Amino acid sequence: MSEATPVIVVGAAGKMGREVVKAVHGAADLTLYGAVDRHPAVQGLDIGDVAGIGSIEVGIHPQLQDICVAIAQEKKTAVMVDFTHPESVYENVRMAIAYGIYPVVGTTGLSPSQLNDLTEFADKATMGGVIAPNFSIGMILLQQAAIRASQYFDHVEIIELHHNQKADAPSGTAIQTAQLLAELGKTYNPAQVKESEHLAGARGALTDENIRIHSVRLPGLIAHQEVIFGAPGQIYTLRHDTSDRSCYMPGVLLAIRKVTQLQRLVYGLEKIL
Amino acid sequence: MSEATPVIVVGAAGKMGREVVKAVHGAADLTLYGAVDRHPAVQGLDIGDVAGIGSIEVGIHPQLQDICVAIAQEKKTAVMVDFTHPESVYENVRMAIAYGIYPVVGTTGLSPSQLNDLTEFADKATMGGVIAPNFSIGMILLQQAAIRASQYFDHVEIIELHHNQKADAPSGTAIQTAQLLAELGKTYNPAQVKESEHLAGARGALTDENIRIHSVRLPGLIAHQEVIFGAPGQIYTLRHDTSDRSCYMPGVLLAIRKVTQLQRLVYGLEKIL
Amino acid sequence: MSEATPVIVVGAAGKMGREVVKAVHGAADLTLYGAVDRHPAVQGLDIGDVAGIGSIEVGIHPQLQDICVAIAQEKKTAVMVDFTHPESVYENVRMAIAYGIYPVVGTTGLSPSQLNDLTEFADKATMGGVIAPNFSIGMILLQQAAIRASQYFDHVEIIELHHNQKADAPSGTAIQTAQLLAELGKTYNPAQVKESEHLAGARGALTDENIRIHSVRLPGLIAHQEVIFGAPGQIYTLRHDTSDRSCYMPGVLLAIRKVTQLQRLVYGLEKIL
Amino acid sequence: MSEATPVIVVGAAGKMGREVVKAVHGAADLTLYGAVDRHPAVQGLDIGDVAGIGSIEVGIHPQLQDICVAIAQEKKTAVMVDFTHPESVYENVRMAIAYGIYPVVGTTGLSPSQLNDLTEFADKATMGGVIAPNFSIGMILLQQAAIRASQYFDHVEIIELHHNQKADAPSGTAIQTAQLLAELGKTYNPAQVKESEHLAGARGALTDENIRIHSVRLPGLIAHQEVIFGAPGQIYTLRHDTSDRSCYMPGVLLAIRKVTQLQRLVYGLEKIL
Repeated sequence: MSEATPVIVVGAAGKMGREVVKAVHGAADLTLYGAVDRHPAVQGLDIGDVAGIGSIEVGIHPQLQDICVAIAQEKKTAVMVDFTHPESVYENVRMAIAYGIYPVVGTTGLSPSQLNDLTEFADKATMGGVIAPNFSIGMILLQQAAIRASQYFDHVEIIELHHNQKADAPSGTAIQTAQLLAELGKTYNPAQVKESEHLAGARGALTDENIRIHSVRLPGLIAHQEVIFGAPGQIYTLRHDTSDRSCYMPGVLLAIRKVTQLQRLVYGLEKIL
Repeated sequence: MSEATPVIVVGAAGKMGREVVKAVHGAADLTLYGAVDRHPAVQGLDIGDVAGIGSIEVGIHPQLQDICVAIAQEKKTAVMVDFTHPESVYENVRMAIAYGIYPVVGTTGLSPSQLNDLTEFADKATMGGVIAPNFSIGMILLQQAAIRASQYFDHVEIIELHHNQKADAPSGTAIQTAQLLAELGKTYNPAQVKESEHLAGARGALTDENIRIHSVRLPGLIAHQEVIFGAPGQIYTLRHDTSDRSCYMPGVLLAIRKVTQLQRLVYGLEKIL
Repeated sequence: MSEATPVIVVGAAGKMGREVVKAVHGAADLTLYGAVDRHPAVQGLDIGDVAGIGSIEVGIHPQLQDICVAIAQEKKTAVMVDFTHPESVYENVRMAIAYGIYPVVGTTGLSPSQLNDLTEFADKATMGGVIAPNFSIGMILLQQAAIRASQYFDHVEIIELHHNQKADAPSGTAIQTAQLLAELGKTYNPAQVKESEHLAGARGALTDENIRIHSVRLPGLIAHQEVIFGAPGQIYTLRHDTSDRSCYMPGVLLAIRKVTQLQRLVYGLEKIL
Repeated sequence: MSEATPVIVVGAAGKMGREVVKAVHGAADLTLYGAVDRHPAVQGLDIGDVAGIGSIEVGIHPQLQDICVAIAQEKKTAVMVDFTHPESVYENVRMAIAYGIYPVVGTTGLSPSQLNDLTEFADKATMGGVIAPNFSIGMILLQQAAIRASQYFDHVEIIELHHNQKADAPSGTAIQTAQLLAELGKTYNPAQVKESEHLAGARGALTDENIRIHSVRLPGLIAHQEVIFGAPGQIYTLRHDTSDRSCYMPGVLLAIRKVTQLQRLVYGLEKIL
């Protein structure tokens, strides 16, 4: 059996970071090599204790570089997983690549020019990397199935439902689904009648793609998206329900396992699915 | 066994009228006494043939009055069912009451003053009657269950889904559901966060009751309403799907059976449920 | 403003107990008077710390009696909430009643004879109490709405969906729903055709009430129940989704607030809804 | 613009045949060349009248051969659509191929050896053909999306819901979906706990693929299938609702348009999607 791949988790004490720590620790082919987190309150603590799985003898460290240096000396193929902040992610990815460590990034907020820089930097180093705004395999499968269905259905609407502490509407993922549907260059939802709204907003938000998005906000909801296709005599519905951050872990693990075979930086989990 | 109650159907050749003819014909305790319809093309035809159940030896007649006269001579307790037009329904109901025939009315469009008149007229005659905008027992059960739930839930949204040949939004029934929820005098959906819409309309129509209604329109849909209550840790959903006019017949038959025991005109099927 | 009602939570360090502690602490009209738990590891700890809301200066105590004595001396109307074990709940309720403290019980496993004893004991003391197997107001509303609908619908099936760590099927609550529907003495689901199962079990479990229950078990599900009524042209669906123990707290708080006005022991949250 | 492709509909007066007649008549690039039906009562009638779209000047004829002869003389590329019976379909397809007419077949009941014969016969003639048990594009998209999802989800159950006049359970399409999922050679639904059924059948039918199918039968339902995938923290649901035979027409039209470009007989609409 081949040796377990060492993984460094940056932002390890955050909500996503702790999930990643648990997932990496639970995977036989991976080993948690280091845990980085800048938060003063957790320095030196065992990341296993912080993640709720008991001591695993990996202390939380404030600096990514020290760990990069250590792993580089061992000459192993290693992966860095970053769930940190928009301000730190760019430097973390550059550093990882500089030390020959493959980056898997879930942190959002990289600007287009930062993304370009990192892509070029990885190209020069002939290093692979995965940057993804969404590690939910289920949601990506839904979006891919929706794109496929849109070849045969002309009518579609989206309902997204979230807890009532989500301030913005529609959700970013619902907007992204509408944009993906638009890539076919198709005109959706040709009108059958002249519609009128007695109460403004009843028909939902209208995207540039002429797709309606309806946003429901209620306590008790978590995160749900429904794409409804209609044609005479039939309805085809795709729905994804998220109840827990653990749902992102299969996507993160997949990225960790595939990134070391990549020769360039890819954007979006769908690129490796 | 008691004799079957004679029933006159007015607007018998229309879409709802034909359904009522079939339902009355199929009920052992009712007998189809007369079929009235003004449409020239159907005069004299057997209403059974028109309704698609084969001849039942009841010819379509253009005038309600003739049939009222005939039934009054037989001194039987009879019922008139009216699914006609806003222009004719008022006169039809007055005539039925004048002849001692109990009216069951599904025609919409009576003005408040016409309703008052008919109520007074029925009171003077000590006659009962049922006027209902909606004969769907399932929808009324949904609305009653929603009213009950609203005592314990503070958060609720409504999604109504119809075929894309429905021009107006939200549906009248969805607005009615919101109004019924408002009768408790409760403030729904207290905000947890300051919401912002990136795309106008995403959060649906806001009713006076502070309830959001979302209207979906797609081919393949028929007529559906969903009332979603939320509270921490739970969601309670009531949904009604209509696929066929036959769904109104249990309500119409119920009204026919109960109306002869009423001493006054009631508005709304829920009054006799 | 009247004084806050003192509440003793027994089984305070358990999963439900901690939720109750948080709910009572967050209610302006209630005050957490005492926290009882037999578990050695938590003795003397602040129950607020254990429940994750920070210190509230109420220590965990191993004995209910000491707290009953203390509260009795203060001559206040108090409530005991018990989420413990089948072995201890009977004694806890007797003791509470003996000291004039109103019991609210969520612990299951009391035998019929124990229930009878406690009812008689409460009667003699002219004390009220609430014992309920289910504090989910949403589920009880669903069951009440289902009973109401069953007066008008003859056809109904139940689907319950739970995580795949639930070993038994169907769920107790689904069976209870079927039993409640049976109380009307109605024969459900008269056959339209002679059914045949190509694969055994396809049509689900058949209850004594001739109602089919289908049990779905998948990771990612939490706890869901759907009651589907059908009639020609329409479907009426009631669905309850539970995602979190917090969903029981409105029911527990309702019972705490109402129990002090009761003169006898009632079984089932629906009795006070 | 190229000339419209002539289409012969066999079984034209049946339920599916009439839908095909309407769909072909409504398509600008197709022309209804002939309508064949053996039923004595409809001989000589205009198929447009029978299909409910008014006269289209195509009479119903009892013999396919006469029409094949006529079209062969015109030397046009033509298509035959067959929705007849298991006894006649084999001969119809042979005859069509013999005359150089491309067959599109929705009739079920061809034996494996008949299918082989027809495939060989078409090969010799270098003719294409489409034989499909299901022309619902929506259902095929659902099945393809399910196959795709099964690469990433290990847990799945199927619920199919139909009107209560359907005698057999589970539905053929649900069984087919389970079989398609099995083609990946994967072991689904590894047990997390030892399950026990208090009431036999609660957990549904177990297919050879270890997939549970639950069959709901209620009046008011039409034809619905739901495939539910689960993983920790997420549920991914695919649902198809059929309300009307018109839903098959996009699939039939697609087959008519594509069959003339095929050089062999294909089985399954998915082959040309």
